Amino acid sequence: MQMNKTNSIIILKFDDKEFHWSQNESLLSRLEDEGVVKLVFPLHDEIKRKQLLRNWALNWHDFTLQPIDEIYSYFGTKIAIYFSFLGMYTRWLFFPAVFGLATQLIDFGPLQWLVLPAFFIFVISWAVFFLQFWKRKNSAILARWGINYSFSECKTLGNELESLSRTDDNVQEKKFGHAPDNKRILQRNEWFGVLLKIRNNAIIVLAIICLQLPFELAYAHLYEFTETEALRYLLTAAYLVAIQYYTRIGGKVSVILIKYENNQGEQSSADSLVYKVFGLYFVQSYIGLFYHASRYRDILTLRKVLIQRLIVSQVLENLIENSIPYLKYSYKKYRAVHKKKHEKESPAGKSVRLSTRVEKEYLKPSYTASIGEELDDGLFDDFLELTLQFGMIMMFACAFPLIFCFATVNNVTEIRADALKLLVMLKRPAPRVAATIGAWLNIFQFLVVMAICTNCLLLICLYDAEGKWRIEPGLAAILIMEHALLLIKFGFSHFVPEEPAWVKANRVRYVAQAQNVCSKQLLRSISKRDTKWA
Amino acid sequence: MQMNKTNSIIILKFDDKEFHWSQNESLLSRLEDEGVVKLVFPLHDEIKRKQLLRNWALNWHDFTLQPIDEIYSYFGTKIAIYFSFLGMYTRWLFFPAVFGLATQLIDFGPLQWLVLPAFFIFVISWAVFFLQFWKRKNSAILARWGINYSFSECKTLGNELESLSRTDDNVQEKKFGHAPDNKRILQRNEWFGVLLKIRNNAIIVLAIICLQLPFELAYAHLYEFTETEALRYLLTAAYLVAIQYYTRIGGKVSVILIKYENNQGEQSSADSLVYKVFGLYFVQSYIGLFYHASRYRDILTLRKVLIQRLIVSQVLENLIENSIPYLKYSYKKYRAVHKKKHEKESPAGKSVRLSTRVEKEYLKPSYTASIGEELDDGLFDDFLELTLQFGMIMMFACAFPLIFCFATVNNVTEIRADALKLLVMLKRPAPRVAATIGAWLNIFQFLVVMAICTNCLLLICLYDAEGKWRIEPGLAAILIMEHALLLIKFGFSHFVPEEPAWVKANRVRYVAQAQNVCSKQLLRSISKRDTKWA
Repeated sequence: MQMNKTNSIIILKFDDKEFHWSQNESLLSRLEDEGVVKLVFPLHDEIKRKQLLRNWALNWHDFTLQPIDEIYSYFGTKIAIYFSFLGMYTRWLFFPAVFGLATQLIDFGPLQWLVLPAFFIFVISWAVFFLQFWKRKNSAILARWGINYSFSECKTLGNELESLSRTDDNVQEKKFGHAPDNKRILQRNEWFGVLLKIRNNAIIVLAIICLQLPFELAYAHLYEFTETEALRYLLTAAYLVAIQYYTRIGGKVSVILIKYENNQGEQSSADSLVYKVFGLYFVQSYIGLFYHASRYRDILTLRKVLIQRLIVSQVLENLIENSIPYLKYSYKKYRAVHKKKHEKESPAGKSVRLSTRVEKEYLKPSYTASIGEELDDGLFDDFLELTLQFGMIMMFACAFPLIFCFATVNNVTEIRADALKLLVMLKRPAPRVAATIGAWLNIFQFLVVMAICTNCLLLICLYDAEGKWRIEPGLAAILIMEHALLLIKFGFSHFVPEEPAWVKANRVRYVAQAQNVCSKQLLRSISKRDTKWA
Repeated sequence: MQMNKTNSIIILKFDDKEFHWSQNESLLSRLEDEGVVKLVFPLHDEIKRKQLLRNWALNWHDFTLQPIDEIYSYFGTKIAIYFSFLGMYTRWLFFPAVFGLATQLIDFGPLQWLVLPAFFIFVISWAVFFLQFWKRKNSAILARWGINYSFSECKTLGNELESLSRTDDNVQEKKFGHAPDNKRILQRNEWFGVLLKIRNNAIIVLAIICLQLPFELAYAHLYEFTETEALRYLLTAAYLVAIQYYTRIGGKVSVILIKYENNQGEQSSADSLVYKVFGLYFVQSYIGLFYHASRYRDILTLRKVLIQRLIVSQVLENLIENSIPYLKYSYKKYRAVHKKKHEKESPAGKSVRLSTRVEKEYLKPSYTASIGEELDDGLFDDFLELTLQFGMIMMFACAFPLIFCFATVNNVTEIRADALKLLVMLKRPAPRVAATIGAWLNIFQFLVVMAICTNCLLLICLYDAEGKWRIEPGLAAILIMEHALLLIKFGFSHFVPEEPAWVKANRVRYVAQAQNVCSKQLLRSISKRDTKWA
């Protein structure tokens, strides 16, 4: 970064404007403040971009083959990990898709009643295997790229150290803290943070129950009274557009809530946001399905709704996802050309075009999340879409085994569509460091557990056509209690970390000191050697 | 360690024997081979031992207060962590003990039917909180003792590096391996290891089903036909003694099986043994209770059996645990005195006593596990006892809330008994490094999940006195399938590690290199400074 290293203030001129570049100020931030530099963003590299287009986005030979290493070197870790995950997920999806197709096409004769439970067990085992092998693949990829865990740990440690020193400063302002005092304050801060988190999550849950549920149930009720199929598709489409904005507001509220949590480090607050927003979308996406499933106890209706949802939502999602950026870009381009025309009207009447590639790319929309541009990059939306799809196909696997085929086809096109979006329609995103897919993996694992429970319910509904298996209220209460307790058992450790904050603070400080000593020694010995050789 | 650093072979003489101490040989191991040195063991420090006896083993003022720091400095990390865990467990046990006592003493009137479910929810939440807060306490203790995670990680890394280099050697013997070749062989080794582990576990499970189950069920059946109470107690006692040896054989078999697994590092094979032996004891301890619970669906019988088991097993355990070492010691002492008398008969007829403290301590039994002296230290038995008790009180909490009181009383005496055993009756054990309680914590967590399921079953039995809640076979099958799948979901990651072996090998190698470079730099800079100052 260019700094003013001289001892005087430099006066700069640009377009009749004049401003002062004071001492030890960054030139770039000064120019940004003055509006001379509008935005700093990485440019596309035309040769590599075309190569990627050919090898990846427009490569129709092998559906799931992706040049991950090239994507990594062009877009950075986080995006490459996303595409690697998407590719592996799509490849693995072929197995249940084939099984699902087989259940529909082949008649198993007297063993027909065994097919659905077998499919259920197969799908759950498949998901468990897939997630475990993804973790293995993830670490193999990181090893291939030479990204060491210790490096990323160092980075998060650094972040934590920073946030700790910030809290330390706060502490120092209040008191001239001694060591045990410091420990007590850190402990208090930690529990205060846990309480804040619980409060925020309670707000989200209450909002979901009081605001979102009535809306969803109203839609489900309205849907019943609509007769013609076409009207139903229309209603669903209108609902989906409405809900898009509805949940987006929820997302924005979550972003605001996150700021009032004292999360340690950027990663932790990003994860907290992921959980909150996923909660909103989870209810939005599945409550209608649960309503239909529980009200009618009829598999055929559920299947119809599933198909409608999947097709409409996927088509709509892809349309919105791909058309809105393009429309925005076209509009901006049109306005820019228009403006230029006006400006240049006086000198000559010749045709006006955007001359430089930079200008064109500046007008392209950037790759950001729909819920809050400041917090996370565009992968948020893509991961959300993926988890919602995974949840839908897993949780209702027994109701409609063919759904895996739809998901496979959709994902194959999704890979290409996302690639095109990144390469053609958007600004090149700044590379981000991420060693794993983070909180999303936890959500995938949570969805597998949910899938076990919902599929059991579906099987009970399916096989109990005569209503013989009446579950008495008492029995149902005990079963619900059991599942709630299992949820508490596996969810509790999420709230209370295993390592108290003060222990972590000590450890981080210790590691930082050790690193410091180490690097100083290294520098000293290198400089000594240099003087010797000079 | 004393080594022969001279260039010649030294000839040593002892009791008319003469032997050669060759070059670069350890004196100690040579003397051990020759039988001059019989055993190397740490001696008790009388002052500190008396202090600990006063402050800890014979301190009857505060039941759960233990001088953990003193225990740590006297016995080392592993034993101190055990007593710290035992102390916290006992302290926390007071809460459910008080609640359990309240459920028996207070009549809640019309809300009586709510008491057991409330107790169930309380106990499960208690266990979840206890285990999470134990993890926090564990890391706080380690921080207080200045044991850094990174240190223990370094140590395990070192162990792994060693075992990896060993496999590398094997690889090198077979082929002059190149890097990708090496990777493939590591991968093959890893999967071979997984298969071996599965085979061994299958052997254990089959042995339990084919050998242990019939025996246990035969006992349960016999127990039915015994009429008088006294005979039943006798039968239980006889059975418990028999089963002690029966399961001990199982443990020895497990120790042998472990040797045929290629576990990475000592910790991993110790964990594997813990799981296997616990499986044996789990079936042994609870199958009879399950048999009674499922056959009679009668809470009163179950309660009786529970009391018998708890009292008889705890009394027997403590008797055996404490009397056998004492008897062994007395017998050895008697023989030693006898021998000395014979030897010294010629010079004088005066009273013969063991003169030195070292001789006395040599005769004391050492603190080893009952299943295999070579593998683990004596804490194995103590932890096993603790987990079995935890399993019994948690899994049958609803059948008999008072059981928590018995457990509390038992644990308060257990702390003193174990302390006395370590301080008075046994050789001072060599300190062992262990940062956590390891695999036992996983077993505690597994028992909490089991407790959720078994207590639900108990509640169903309790509240369904009229047999209205008939669970149809189909429904039962689906519920069993659900629980089996949940078990698979949470158990699968145990078998397939998240990080492939070759990635781990690379990482370990990288860390070792970095440490090497670092320490060399440090040494060089220190030596330079020294020469400068000299």
